[in-house]
Amino acid sequence: MKLYSYYRSMATFRVRIALNIKGLKRDDEFIHLEHGDQFKPEYKALNPQSVVPTLIDDGARLFQSLAILEYLEEKYPSPPLLPKDALARAWVRGFALINVADSHPLIVPRIRNYLTRVMKIDDATRLAWIQHWLGAGLQAMEELLAERKESGKFCHGDAPTFADICLVTQVTPAQLFKCKLDAYPRVMRIHEACMMIPAFAEAHPLKQPDAEKH
Amino acid sequence: MKLYSYYRSMATFRVRIALNIKGLKRDDEFIHLEHGDQFKPEYKALNPQSVVPTLIDDGARLFQSLAILEYLEEKYPSPPLLPKDALARAWVRGFALINVADSHPLIVPRIRNYLTRVMKIDDATRLAWIQHWLGAGLQAMEELLAERKESGKFCHGDAPTFADICLVTQVTPAQLFKCKLDAYPRVMRIHEACMMIPAFAEAHPLKQPDAEKH
Repeated sequence: MKLYSYYRSMATFRVRIALNIKGLKRDDEFIHLEHGDQFKPEYKALNPQSVVPTLIDDGARLFQSLAILEYLEEKYPSPPLLPKDALARAWVRGFALINVADSHPLIVPRIRNYLTRVMKIDDATRLAWIQHWLGAGLQAMEELLAERKESGKFCHGDAPTFADICLVTQVTPAQLFKCKLDAYPRVMRIHEACMMIPAFAEAHPLKQPDAEKH
Repeated sequence: MKLYSYYRSMATFRVRIALNIKGLKRDDEFIHLEHGDQFKPEYKALNPQSVVPTLIDDGARLFQSLAILEYLEEKYPSPPLLPKDALARAWVRGFALINVADSHPLIVPRIRNYLTRVMKIDDATRLAWIQHWLGAGLQAMEELLAERKESGKFCHGDAPTFADICLVTQVTPAQLFKCKLDAYPRVMRIHEACMMIPAFAEAHPLKQPDAEKH
């Protein structure tokens, strides 16, 4: 497998975690989003959206991190990253989508660039935007965990699922952008449990070869 | 089944289409997003994010439209809304996520409200934002369809899938916000094919009982 990756990309972080949990080896090809590698014709031919990640498996090209997670779950089911019961699967997917489809799309580089370059938003207002939307997602996650009796060491039971992967990709940028995290004790407890697992820890942005010193 | 719905919500539109295709009857309960019904304590207890849709099936509460689509596909598999082959499923899900996880999150009411009320963005700049991000998603969809030999009457083959549902919820707001659509002939052809199907047409926002004259 080959993964087109950028160390800071949370979407790629999700895929790295899933590949690690399932014990799948990969070669990384680094796409430097701040240098604009994603707009080069050879990458755009592979990924018309000019985003990471792209995963190549057996010559087939896969895009969109959640679609890749679902694919990995279907093709390499062990260990599972979704529960068996349909309602539990729906809860796990719904929880994951708070990160994937609500919070994260609002803070990616192309949005931050548009706010600065096109809308001429100042840095403080931009940071407030980022913190506001990450906080809204964290708050929803905290409330869902508080009411859910099936929450255990992880979001659903005692093994990680899509929900935990996407909890980690919610907390990681929240730390980077200095959100206040005291109000989300359940989220932070699970984040800590995840990051004790090598499959998560080794997938962290700052552990990637393209993470320059900064 | 009971669906907490708002006529203009594209996320709810997705679920209405899927329920209609699968022949599943529902009762609607209308949550008026512009009047703030979603923030009332009784709805927030049901949906901590204060968003629609919420679906109740057999007493269980489901949230996030794509998680609901996956649940319906697992519990009520006929007619299918995903192909059988794992790679084709990944393509369909990836295509759908361009709408669900990239374009749509940027134009929902809470974002439009934040741009206006908190960031004090003028209407023209806000409209340019909406058109820019809807256009970026439409462009990616057009390019994916252009290169895909499995595209037929619909995005994948000759029956609708998640991809077509989410193509429709990309085009519908693009029409509402007056995006130029000439550059996306494949997308528009499939949109037209979808809207000929009663399951799609009857799910349209303006066909819902809570769509006031405006």
